[in-house]
Amino acid sequence: MLFKIHSELSYEVYEPTTFIFNIQPSVTAEQLIKEESLNITPELWYKEFTLNNSGTRLIKMQVNYGTFTIAYNAVIEVNEISKDESALAISVPVMEMDNEVLPYISPSRHCESDKLVQFAKKEFGHLPNEYSKVQAINDWIFNSVEYVSGSTNASVSACDTIISRIGVCKDFAHLGIALCRALDIPARYCSVYAANLVPPDIHACFEAYIGGLWILFDPTRLSAENSRVKIADSKDASEAAVAVFYGNTYCTYMNVQCDIIE
Amino acid sequence: MLFKIHSELSYEVYEPTTFIFNIQPSVTAEQLIKEESLNITPELWYKEFTLNNSGTRLIKMQVNYGTFTIAYNAVIEVNEISKDESALAISVPVMEMDNEVLPYISPSRHCESDKLVQFAKKEFGHLPNEYSKVQAINDWIFNSVEYVSGSTNASVSACDTIISRIGVCKDFAHLGIALCRALDIPARYCSVYAANLVPPDIHACFEAYIGGLWILFDPTRLSAENSRVKIADSKDASEAAVAVFYGNTYCTYMNVQCDIIE
Amino acid sequence: MLFKIHSELSYEVYEPTTFIFNIQPSVTAEQLIKEESLNITPELWYKEFTLNNSGTRLIKMQVNYGTFTIAYNAVIEVNEISKDESALAISVPVMEMDNEVLPYISPSRHCESDKLVQFAKKEFGHLPNEYSKVQAINDWIFNSVEYVSGSTNASVSACDTIISRIGVCKDFAHLGIALCRALDIPARYCSVYAANLVPPDIHACFEAYIGGLWILFDPTRLSAENSRVKIADSKDASEAAVAVFYGNTYCTYMNVQCDIIE
Amino acid sequence: MLFKIHSELSYEVYEPTTFIFNIQPSVTAEQLIKEESLNITPELWYKEFTLNNSGTRLIKMQVNYGTFTIAYNAVIEVNEISKDESALAISVPVMEMDNEVLPYISPSRHCESDKLVQFAKKEFGHLPNEYSKVQAINDWIFNSVEYVSGSTNASVSACDTIISRIGVCKDFAHLGIALCRALDIPARYCSVYAANLVPPDIHACFEAYIGGLWILFDPTRLSAENSRVKIADSKDASEAAVAVFYGNTYCTYMNVQCDIIE
Repeated sequence: MLFKIHSELSYEVYEPTTFIFNIQPSVTAEQLIKEESLNITPELWYKEFTLNNSGTRLIKMQVNYGTFTIAYNAVIEVNEISKDESALAISVPVMEMDNEVLPYISPSRHCESDKLVQFAKKEFGHLPNEYSKVQAINDWIFNSVEYVSGSTNASVSACDTIISRIGVCKDFAHLGIALCRALDIPARYCSVYAANLVPPDIHACFEAYIGGLWILFDPTRLSAENSRVKIADSKDASEAAVAVFYGNTYCTYMNVQCDIIE
Repeated sequence: MLFKIHSELSYEVYEPTTFIFNIQPSVTAEQLIKEESLNITPELWYKEFTLNNSGTRLIKMQVNYGTFTIAYNAVIEVNEISKDESALAISVPVMEMDNEVLPYISPSRHCESDKLVQFAKKEFGHLPNEYSKVQAINDWIFNSVEYVSGSTNASVSACDTIISRIGVCKDFAHLGIALCRALDIPARYCSVYAANLVPPDIHACFEAYIGGLWILFDPTRLSAENSRVKIADSKDASEAAVAVFYGNTYCTYMNVQCDIIE
Repeated sequence: MLFKIHSELSYEVYEPTTFIFNIQPSVTAEQLIKEESLNITPELWYKEFTLNNSGTRLIKMQVNYGTFTIAYNAVIEVNEISKDESALAISVPVMEMDNEVLPYISPSRHCESDKLVQFAKKEFGHLPNEYSKVQAINDWIFNSVEYVSGSTNASVSACDTIISRIGVCKDFAHLGIALCRALDIPARYCSVYAANLVPPDIHACFEAYIGGLWILFDPTRLSAENSRVKIADSKDASEAAVAVFYGNTYCTYMNVQCDIIE
Repeated sequence: MLFKIHSELSYEVYEPTTFIFNIQPSVTAEQLIKEESLNITPELWYKEFTLNNSGTRLIKMQVNYGTFTIAYNAVIEVNEISKDESALAISVPVMEMDNEVLPYISPSRHCESDKLVQFAKKEFGHLPNEYSKVQAINDWIFNSVEYVSGSTNASVSACDTIISRIGVCKDFAHLGIALCRALDIPARYCSVYAANLVPPDIHACFEAYIGGLWILFDPTRLSAENSRVKIADSKDASEAAVAVFYGNTYCTYMNVQCDIIE
């Protein structure tokens, strides 16, 4: 599947400010970047980097004052590894998990899995394997939480959402992650470009580690299979922001487009 | 129904301390005190009082130092008003509610009903009337929360219990109250002596205002109908403690007995 | 001191809705209503009432559909009882407090005093009497919390404000109440009309029970002494809302004026 | 400085359980392991590993049933890099920070720095550089929070401690980390063996990134400089547990000794 991506953000900067952007698709075995360009107007010096053991691509730049726009354009080929249903039914015991997967069982800022163990066990613990558990979690969130644009702020976490039953894509993802981890299933946050998303925006899903693979789930049901380009994965949204800044600035414009090219 | 009640508490007092006890059954139309006695050993001066508009009976005393025991014995006749099922199906609109009932719709320390509106509406809002809603809330709590002795402390509230899914009788009651209020159904906390409770202790239930009457519910299912003697009702446990003290003391002994006399 | 008050609210009503308004000054020994009028446009039936043992005046009305405006005008004489400084230095032990004052020591929805005991004792416990403690609490809040209009919503409570250090008048009041109660000093919420408030609005303060009197404190320092008309007192804002409604409605207009007439 | 370490834990295992232990000192430039031995009784198969880019040493093992003891003994030479005071006064802007340091600015499960920005800025923001800020944070915690053994459980986080003002070493560390990150200073959790700790236990401190170095702070003041052997560093305690288990087990014995050998 071939995707055309356009992502554009404008900022007003009031004092010297450092920006870290995370808008480029990540480097994974499934994603091939056919073309891409990054344009900053006015022209500003920036530095690209990835963290160790991570395919997440970051851009670091310093802006002193005034306005600027960062625009990213790309054509990406995504070849989703087909999931063998029989493989998904296999339980990988903690002893046999890849060591790098273990940190994704512990709780994080927005996913307080340690507080949800009793609930997760009672609601999903009886199901036969990890795959059926995560599917049930995914359905339960869709059916129990109402998606309301603009309903939550950045400090909301899974426990807040269990109470309020309202949220946006990142809240749905955090709840999914927290419930998986509460059952000792590794899970991680995943920001994506999704085709045909209404309204267009950067979207959030979650991945659970099942049968030795990271399998993506979208409890909002707003994005379809084979229609997503991964930007980042992380323990939760606190580590996968589209833009982080240190200073004083205001985002004046944001436009995201993701289309499937036949 | 005739009940024999024995309640006894001992304290070690380390500095001058004021105690407020709430161990005597409340004065209500349904409860008739046939006999009662209060013994404090060593003999100490105390003062009995009720708050305005409340049948809750309180004992206030000052203890300077040392140990003391307060023992209450009573024989109480309880004539539960029989609930006419057809009356319970009637909805009393807020406009027609007794004004004194209105404060029981607003949230309180342990019953943050304002945070649970979305959940309560989604889960119980479709039911035809107040009675069916509260019955469903009562069943939902029994089925969703695990009763574990000693599992929670005094600061836990309804939102904590929605997350942890574990608690004792006061937590079950708080959750029931919060969910009722979230649906604009007045609800209040209720401490009782309950016959055949295992282990014997002062028990907590909740009452909802249905068809113009306060109807008692016990989401723990640990006490049976026609086997309870009411001690107090209040917005929540923070206003209905068995013993409150101002000073420094330690409860060294507590014994509660409540038996039905044929 | 003579005050002229004008309070006006307009609503759009989408379905049959019950309103409870609390906009009339309360009946107290210090407040004398010289003139007042209540106008509802279009003319609608309403009912005035007070709760038992409370001077708080409430208006109850049912509106089916459409728009309406409620306007209250009054001239009020307020004679603040002069506080004898020597009386304020007197500690009233719990044993000697008026019984009706005792409920104001226990926590409430927005004032989780039970969680703040250690902090309150460490920060204010060494001070010589209740008056100096509450003055120190009042100053500490002014110096530690930033007043930012529109910064918080209705669910915020004292513990949230201890963390965020930001809020509006009701948050300042809740924190004051919670810290007093944490020291076993009875305290209550108090909504007022305040002269010269910028921007004009209904204001929130708190009262602490000192030397046998309820003494008002305004930790925002936005209102001055002898420039307030009391509307209600209650355990916290959850029991003293300007308007409560059961149904579906939207407030389209609010105008509050309070002026001192020479 | 030469340290002798002995660490011993015993478990009763009720069902097949996977253990991950983190009791061996980490591999760092400052720590040299002179001797060490690991003994598991009865003899059980285990696997040692480290996570990528981490010197933290982990032991993974599967135990089916019964009791076992894991004992670790070592002699470690620790050569603390002497901190040049003038270097500590230097501010490293985010743009120039090592990329691997950036994740330590974002919040984590027990360190909700995003909620404490206003407080941290008001209390510490005026200080001239990172070093003075972190020193002030460290002192503030020591003076504001009471150390009480056994006072908190594993779910407590920095915001809870800001409210309760009570805690143990991990709570002190979490609050230090959260306040640093709230000021955009990278900070991380650090578990250590500390000589002369009373009672002996594995201790928690925090490290802040100052002048390009990770500088250790102990806001409990229970451990002294040049008397610690580092076991792990991580975003917070949720990623640095002494023992994690998946299954059903109970720790029946724990003994930790850390002595300085002249």
